[in-house]
Amino acid sequence: MNSVAIYAGTFDPLTLGHMDIIERSAEIFPKLILAVAEETPKDVLFSLEERVAMAREVVKGLPNVEVESFSGLLVEYARRRKVRVLVRGLRAYSDFEYEFQMALTNRKLAPDIETLFMMPNEIHSYVSSSAVKEVARLGGDTSDFVPATVQAALRAKFAR
Amino acid sequence: MNSVAIYAGTFDPLTLGHMDIIERSAEIFPKLILAVAEETPKDVLFSLEERVAMAREVVKGLPNVEVESFSGLLVEYARRRKVRVLVRGLRAYSDFEYEFQMALTNRKLAPDIETLFMMPNEIHSYVSSSAVKEVARLGGDTSDFVPATVQAALRAKFAR
Amino acid sequence: MNSVAIYAGTFDPLTLGHMDIIERSAEIFPKLILAVAEETPKDVLFSLEERVAMAREVVKGLPNVEVESFSGLLVEYARRRKVRVLVRGLRAYSDFEYEFQMALTNRKLAPDIETLFMMPNEIHSYVSSSAVKEVARLGGDTSDFVPATVQAALRAKFAR
Amino acid sequence: MNSVAIYAGTFDPLTLGHMDIIERSAEIFPKLILAVAEETPKDVLFSLEERVAMAREVVKGLPNVEVESFSGLLVEYARRRKVRVLVRGLRAYSDFEYEFQMALTNRKLAPDIETLFMMPNEIHSYVSSSAVKEVARLGGDTSDFVPATVQAALRAKFAR
Amino acid sequence: MNSVAIYAGTFDPLTLGHMDIIERSAEIFPKLILAVAEETPKDVLFSLEERVAMAREVVKGLPNVEVESFSGLLVEYARRRKVRVLVRGLRAYSDFEYEFQMALTNRKLAPDIETLFMMPNEIHSYVSSSAVKEVARLGGDTSDFVPATVQAALRAKFAR
Amino acid sequence: MNSVAIYAGTFDPLTLGHMDIIERSAEIFPKLILAVAEETPKDVLFSLEERVAMAREVVKGLPNVEVESFSGLLVEYARRRKVRVLVRGLRAYSDFEYEFQMALTNRKLAPDIETLFMMPNEIHSYVSSSAVKEVARLGGDTSDFVPATVQAALRAKFAR
Repeated sequence: MNSVAIYAGTFDPLTLGHMDIIERSAEIFPKLILAVAEETPKDVLFSLEERVAMAREVVKGLPNVEVESFSGLLVEYARRRKVRVLVRGLRAYSDFEYEFQMALTNRKLAPDIETLFMMPNEIHSYVSSSAVKEVARLGGDTSDFVPATVQAALRAKFAR
Repeated sequence: MNSVAIYAGTFDPLTLGHMDIIERSAEIFPKLILAVAEETPKDVLFSLEERVAMAREVVKGLPNVEVESFSGLLVEYARRRKVRVLVRGLRAYSDFEYEFQMALTNRKLAPDIETLFMMPNEIHSYVSSSAVKEVARLGGDTSDFVPATVQAALRAKFAR
Repeated sequence: MNSVAIYAGTFDPLTLGHMDIIERSAEIFPKLILAVAEETPKDVLFSLEERVAMAREVVKGLPNVEVESFSGLLVEYARRRKVRVLVRGLRAYSDFEYEFQMALTNRKLAPDIETLFMMPNEIHSYVSSSAVKEVARLGGDTSDFVPATVQAALRAKFAR
Repeated sequence: MNSVAIYAGTFDPLTLGHMDIIERSAEIFPKLILAVAEETPKDVLFSLEERVAMAREVVKGLPNVEVESFSGLLVEYARRRKVRVLVRGLRAYSDFEYEFQMALTNRKLAPDIETLFMMPNEIHSYVSSSAVKEVARLGGDTSDFVPATVQAALRAKFAR
Repeated sequence: MNSVAIYAGTFDPLTLGHMDIIERSAEIFPKLILAVAEETPKDVLFSLEERVAMAREVVKGLPNVEVESFSGLLVEYARRRKVRVLVRGLRAYSDFEYEFQMALTNRKLAPDIETLFMMPNEIHSYVSSSAVKEVARLGGDTSDFVPATVQAALRAKFAR
Repeated sequence: MNSVAIYAGTFDPLTLGHMDIIERSAEIFPKLILAVAEETPKDVLFSLEERVAMAREVVKGLPNVEVESFSGLLVEYARRRKVRVLVRGLRAYSDFEYEFQMALTNRKLAPDIETLFMMPNEIHSYVSSSAVKEVARLGGDTSDFVPATVQAALRAKFAR
């Protein structure tokens, strides 16, 4: 059976919703690779190095989670790592549509790789990285939305 | 790691969309239990015995898939079988909403059991058991929507 | 080119939203067949004869619209009538999902028949036959939702 | 200003999601009428008397909430009570569609009456009366979904 | 009871859909503050001053509506103004998702502030500020979508 | 009857999903104009000349399809060409919302022009121009998503 899964994303920044999916996946799969995308369709607030560093910090209590960065197509990266399962969180409706498109595109590109979707705890189900950045930019408190490490990083970014 | 997963449903009748999810799950999990619900919220066309028999017939080429019936709450059944992973197919948007409600309700009832969602091949993504029954009832050809065994069973049901 | 189109439905009863689609279709296609389904998945309030009679009454000012009833699969009926275009109204989101499933199922059953979707005037976009029946059942005024003929028929049905 | 609002529904049975909307409305409006519908489109598990009694029991700590039953169109009832504001909870996507249709139909029937929508706490956002009944019917624990009074009533209904 | 409500937005520019919500809110609440956001996630066509001036112009016939600009988090602004009710319009499906996220984020940041949603007249339900800008940019007539003041301002912006 | 229809878009680039709609429309309408928009709300990868050239290349086997570019409002262009029918593809849910808004806006601007929607083959139903560009940018194989001509053009654009 497939003992390794990849949970990939931009993680700009990693939210408590992401953390919830990471913890759930780490319970189900013997090994989870948290794969941080180098190339992103939109501008990022945090550099690849910052995003990887934050990810490493927040998962350090989870021994079977490993953080890596990757570039190029996710399915190519998965093949190089010999992983056949991609994990995705389904936050809400519009997510589903985007995830559906991405999963079907990935399946066409690599029929041997399967995408499994998980639902985050409803408490985190509305938190998006972009909403978090908007709150931080306007000086709001992000402690209910992101891990402490990320909160500090957001504060540093938006300090005036 | 969790080596067994349950794929539960009414399967009234089992469609090619269901088959697609069964085959995908059987590739990922060492063992898959196809669990046919005895109690159903809506009236069924096929009896429990018929639904189980059709399911057994169509999965007989998949050695790691086992068919069982269950009654009562799905999460209680999963606990009795010591299974922690439920597999669900996500056919389309409205599905998502229903699946979301059911998965969150199940999580509340049994936080130790996780639901994983898979996407069927897009070719099957619009096939529903109720549409299949409607086509069969009106005398249409269901060969593109269900396995041959089910097609024969539908023909027998609606023979006049 | 295809000069005939079919607009099929249960029309239980025909609403101003349906009328809007009929009038729009009759502008585009030289001939429109309004096809009233004999067999319906749900219980109907009006008999087939009543539904056909109401339809005939409301379209009598439209010379290129013809009312017929049909039984069995819609695509089989279209083939018998040598019509290749089905017209459907898209009232709202959930409509789309149902219409999507039905159109794809019909395409599988009859790849030579195409479904074209139109949008009703936004004024009528929320009116459904079942909402109209609910309003009438509770004694409300349906004049903003259905033609006068249908309004009278609803009043007769629910008179106590 | 409008100091009275109506929160109407079937409440078959009243859930913690409903309670959340009731408590939020009672904070905003000086007086809230909890209006239990006598006539319902679907079959009900609890009689009108039972639904009113349960509602009275669960709101007894809220001095500005009054429970009443009504029959006929909601907007006619609101007019008789000289109330111009209807409160509705928006639980999820499909809700929105149904609520949208109902609010627009009500506005057509009574342009002087306005519908205001509130969002329940996300913890309750997936709880529906029908899911609660299904869980209770299958012998599951409903304590996370309904008030204690309702839980006892459900247990009594489904006792075998 | 809460006698003041805030209706906040970018209003770039204010449409007839916004006007509809403003008029409906002004009927229900003794005082409505139309709050124009200084900071916007996307680039704006009109400056803050222009957006405030247009808003003041179009609401001058509504004595209980006051126009203000604000910066920073909306919930912080509401607290400073001692307002506990935010009004939002729900134009369509995708709106709902965005509004849902925003309302839940605001509730987390300020549990004492409640968001109430209203539906615009269906005639205006599809008009968005960005569609209006696109039509104006391409030289189209915007008189069905925006107040006369805004129409003139759009014409001035896109005059070549 | 209306013998000419317009299928307009940015086509940046044209996908197999677009091709499917073009072929279906060319079966129904005696003449189809493929109208490539000069002005686009977002940045384009391919120039107008490139987009027109690719479109001409891929439709050269369809004698009743003509490629043109247009600028300004689509409905004004349709009027100049004396065409009363616009064809649109409905790829998925979010499409519907956008298409709904655009169709209603166009109807307001030009009530004499009707929009007809078609569904692409489900195989192509998730392919979007932007997903295709993302795959190509990351070095992936786009042969399942676009015609060969477009595939070569994408390769040339992203060659390093």
